[in-house]
Amino acid sequence: MPVFTEHAASSRDLRVLPSFAPPLPRLTSTIPQAEKYEVVIVGAGPAGLMMELLLARYGLSDDSLLCIDAKSTTLKSGQADGLQPRTLETLKSLGLADEILTEGCQMWQVAFWNPSEDKEKIIERTSIIPDVAAPSRYPHEVTIHQGRIERILETDLLRYSKRGVQRNTKLLNVRIDEEDAEYPVVAEIETNGQTRIVRSKFLVGADGAHSVVRRSMGLKLEGESSDHIWGVVDLVVDTDFPDIRRRCAIHSPAGSVMVIPRERIATGDYLTRLYVQVPGDVIPSDDQKPDNGTGTPPVADARARRSQVTEKTIFDNAAAAFAPYYIRPKSDGAVDWWAAYQIGQRVTDNFSVKDSHGINRVLIVGDACHTHSPKAGQGMNVSMMDSYNLAWKLAYFINGLTPNISNSDILDTYHKERHTIAQQLIEFDKAFSSMFSGKIGATEGGVGSLTHEEFREVFSRGNGFTSGCGVEYPENMTVDRFAEENPICGTDYLSGILHPGRRLLNVRLIRHADGYRRDLQDDFASTGRFRILCLTSSDLLDPTGISAQALNALSHTIARFPRSLLEQVVVHPRLSREFMWGDIPRAVKEHSEMSFYSGYELDDVYGTYGVDPEKGALAIVRPDGYIGVIASLSHVSRADRYLETLIRTI
Amino acid sequence: MPVFTEHAASSRDLRVLPSFAPPLPRLTSTIPQAEKYEVVIVGAGPAGLMMELLLARYGLSDDSLLCIDAKSTTLKSGQADGLQPRTLETLKSLGLADEILTEGCQMWQVAFWNPSEDKEKIIERTSIIPDVAAPSRYPHEVTIHQGRIERILETDLLRYSKRGVQRNTKLLNVRIDEEDAEYPVVAEIETNGQTRIVRSKFLVGADGAHSVVRRSMGLKLEGESSDHIWGVVDLVVDTDFPDIRRRCAIHSPAGSVMVIPRERIATGDYLTRLYVQVPGDVIPSDDQKPDNGTGTPPVADARARRSQVTEKTIFDNAAAAFAPYYIRPKSDGAVDWWAAYQIGQRVTDNFSVKDSHGINRVLIVGDACHTHSPKAGQGMNVSMMDSYNLAWKLAYFINGLTPNISNSDILDTYHKERHTIAQQLIEFDKAFSSMFSGKIGATEGGVGSLTHEEFREVFSRGNGFTSGCGVEYPENMTVDRFAEENPICGTDYLSGILHPGRRLLNVRLIRHADGYRRDLQDDFASTGRFRILCLTSSDLLDPTGISAQALNALSHTIARFPRSLLEQVVVHPRLSREFMWGDIPRAVKEHSEMSFYSGYELDDVYGTYGVDPEKGALAIVRPDGYIGVIASLSHVSRADRYLETLIRTI
Repeated sequence: MPVFTEHAASSRDLRVLPSFAPPLPRLTSTIPQAEKYEVVIVGAGPAGLMMELLLARYGLSDDSLLCIDAKSTTLKSGQADGLQPRTLETLKSLGLADEILTEGCQMWQVAFWNPSEDKEKIIERTSIIPDVAAPSRYPHEVTIHQGRIERILETDLLRYSKRGVQRNTKLLNVRIDEEDAEYPVVAEIETNGQTRIVRSKFLVGADGAHSVVRRSMGLKLEGESSDHIWGVVDLVVDTDFPDIRRRCAIHSPAGSVMVIPRERIATGDYLTRLYVQVPGDVIPSDDQKPDNGTGTPPVADARARRSQVTEKTIFDNAAAAFAPYYIRPKSDGAVDWWAAYQIGQRVTDNFSVKDSHGINRVLIVGDACHTHSPKAGQGMNVSMMDSYNLAWKLAYFINGLTPNISNSDILDTYHKERHTIAQQLIEFDKAFSSMFSGKIGATEGGVGSLTHEEFREVFSRGNGFTSGCGVEYPENMTVDRFAEENPICGTDYLSGILHPGRRLLNVRLIRHADGYRRDLQDDFASTGRFRILCLTSSDLLDPTGISAQALNALSHTIARFPRSLLEQVVVHPRLSREFMWGDIPRAVKEHSEMSFYSGYELDDVYGTYGVDPEKGALAIVRPDGYIGVIASLSHVSRADRYLETLIRTI
Repeated sequence: MPVFTEHAASSRDLRVLPSFAPPLPRLTSTIPQAEKYEVVIVGAGPAGLMMELLLARYGLSDDSLLCIDAKSTTLKSGQADGLQPRTLETLKSLGLADEILTEGCQMWQVAFWNPSEDKEKIIERTSIIPDVAAPSRYPHEVTIHQGRIERILETDLLRYSKRGVQRNTKLLNVRIDEEDAEYPVVAEIETNGQTRIVRSKFLVGADGAHSVVRRSMGLKLEGESSDHIWGVVDLVVDTDFPDIRRRCAIHSPAGSVMVIPRERIATGDYLTRLYVQVPGDVIPSDDQKPDNGTGTPPVADARARRSQVTEKTIFDNAAAAFAPYYIRPKSDGAVDWWAAYQIGQRVTDNFSVKDSHGINRVLIVGDACHTHSPKAGQGMNVSMMDSYNLAWKLAYFINGLTPNISNSDILDTYHKERHTIAQQLIEFDKAFSSMFSGKIGATEGGVGSLTHEEFREVFSRGNGFTSGCGVEYPENMTVDRFAEENPICGTDYLSGILHPGRRLLNVRLIRHADGYRRDLQDDFASTGRFRILCLTSSDLLDPTGISAQALNALSHTIARFPRSLLEQVVVHPRLSREFMWGDIPRAVKEHSEMSFYSGYELDDVYGTYGVDPEKGALAIVRPDGYIGVIASLSHVSRADRYLETLIRTI
């Protein structure tokens, strides 16, 4: 019997808590007084909560950060439900993916149903393909209630912020008033009938499609509505349709339906979302190709038709489109939520407003910037990713980590990057919605019809974009694409070839220190740090080789920037012999003891990334996981120059 | 712009919460009055918390269930730190594995260090092998602070129980008094100096090595202590030893050390646990083989030596064993905890005490039943698995789900199964500890030494057991091994061949309904349900075939038992053609729409389980994931008979 004589050091409470994200270093010192904040966030939907959570994790305290929302709780039903692969990677990088992956509905396949040539059958399954074609750590979508995502974000937020979201509080208006030059943003807010003024350095508008921030700042939402009317309903179904648990695009002679399988609920039943085309939605014949813009039929009429849609209209149309299969609510009370909407796409011309010194002071994210139709499952994703793009830039500027405290160039890159994505989203959505509202013709002559192949082609081509994995940010100070000597071979960036502006694809590798079979993305947690990814060449064991030289130079690079802000991950290709720590440059163990990997035993990392093992390569990865710059091992100075433009040296 | 007109059904709050485990059906009705409980649990370490959590999830309310603990909080430092693969599978089945897998230290490899023939080197690495040899969903151990496991269990418990653990409350004594025949267990407990009497139907003693329950009930702990003295210390180290992040068995000329890498802590540093042999621990020459029992040197003397061990003793001995490498605490305050212990193994003769009607009333779990040395990382695992074994049996009996309410035979199986495992644990530990305290001889002549091969052999052979994956329960009413016609080929049960008494190995398969690539174990959540695992034969598409007949018969089986208590999982081998739901027996969609899989596209399920695809097979899996009985598809009645002995029919 092991009888213990124990001696414990003083309190080790932290040993039992979930780990906390380490705050960013702070080189500025001002903490504002009461009712002055560094950042005010308006709106606590997925975009606003993501923004607040990230800033809180980066180290902004309740004294510095305020998030308000007009509603009294998180969402209870309806609205968004889809999470894309790239969003799942992002949530994983925050330690928030487990419940979503386990309890959400993993959507792996999409089935296409089209008119059958056999009149008895009416419709038939044309094909089943993978729902996600882009390589990703999670090669599927997840559908789950938006309110649940909000609850997950808020629960984590409350580990970092005592206040959390200040609810029942709405924004009345916001303006810039430089009388107080340090806190030039003035917001008038109202809680339970009481109004008050709050000043801040920055204000982030995450207040949705009807954004008060956008209106107050005079930003324009540009675009059009079409006359396509759709109904959407969340319910537990009773049906004999065989593919009800797959995502389905059904083009029947009676209209189109999209089936989105959803998560299991407390009763043990599974939810289904149906998008159902509503009748009278006649498509002008020149509006069937994706690229010819939206025809402009009487939109006011469409709005009237939308308001006349009822739950019965939706089910009647669904029943017609599913024939000969039956579909109905499983029981009374089986319908969670329904809505009718009119397809349209709009984007705001500018995502931020500057003060007279050219500093971005008011920024908008999410639906406040862009709205579109819901069927491609993009809204919640693009909105959260807006915040994910902006948060680290804002935190760097506020914490004085950027080289010049009076120069907010880094904040300019937010509009530059995310407006580009919003435009691409709008273009994709126009094509996809329009196609989806069209008929697939097994009908005689095929007049006014599109082929299954055309539809499937738009679907698959769009997948790089819709999955979030194909996002590519344009050249800017955080994406440096100029390379005098590019060490990367290949251009299939979606499949992993390293490229500035693209996210770093996950690979599996084995850690030297302990043999842990690990996902590389787990070394790129969303803690706001930049990372050096050094793919050494095969000469790593040569103390005078190019790898050793690069690693020694990188040691100096790391030392030039604020402590903890630069992390280093090192990967090696197959080497000439077995080795121990003593056989490689000391810098590896010093900076990367627990982030040093063999890159050939599990995945072919060098092949995937387009790196020649004889030459190696170097990438700087931004805090949000996108590649900022690439250099050859002999050009560490290039990485230095990139970092110097973004981070203050010490 | 999609302008929504929304209509939400009344409150859907459950949509946003993490899902709750569904309680078991209840056929009995009594809920006790105040200070009468159905179950009292004494002790809230890993075993007690696991017990309370499971019973709460099975549906016992705070009125029915009380757990007390003498301490005021969960553990803050020291004690157990290792989770074995089978324990990880179990935690996953409760939805509690994510934080542990993500933030614990995954221990994938073990390195063996032995005396070097090169006198300059002193010690050298002989080999590195996988830490876990048994096939498992998680082929590694995880080390993480015991207090963190307790916090994770308690956090989940508080979703099911408002009271949680009643702390600062200790058991003074317990006895059986049948004056109140329904609540015959009488416990005297004390909270902050106030004593009171609590009656219950059952009492579970999870109160550790010094169990008051065990002592009160007169149960004997039998076994011996050896004179081997070891020190154990948790700290952040500074060392140039190359394998400090691997589990290491170091046999140096100066003594033995085991290195256990531990999790990363809030400072960003990594913890290490060292087990260090303490000097004067001379091994008699007849005590070096694992099978000859413990020699009985002067134990009293060993106890005296144990009490003289200091932090310095441990570090001095560690320093000597690591030479020529240095090892020391990284800084002042780097030591979390240390202890000295004397190796020994004891097991209680009986794990339960019955009343005069033969009903088991007081049961003990965890360290109260068995104690042993800590180096094989077993204690916390075997203890939690004791509770995991007992909880569903107790809940079935309490809820009236067993066939005969005055017959507690099912509770007899707890002692039968877990005492067997405790005995095996003790035997393994004797062999392993004794070996580990021995010297590996590169010394001249090898007198008094054992070879590296001998040690490694004990280590590897023991791995089936230590991983938890090789556990095999003996024949009893819940493990029916008699088969007139055994459909299973093979005997390599550790690798997955189906066998009553063994756990069901995880396999990966593709779900028919939605193409989800899924782990089979995720359909075997720890919700207290029995499962029918039907591996159909390749004649599934023949409506009169053996598969169809078996599935139809199983429909009747399911209907005979209380609703929701029997779940069905169906797997099919490669079939002669593609099919839809309409081509297979209706019973599959009716009972297994979301648990129907192809068993050949990812893993070779039939090969792994030893099932001939031409014949198929049937297994009943117990609520704890162990196989209860196996039958051929033509003998569904055999499954019926097995279930009838355990579950009340309706």
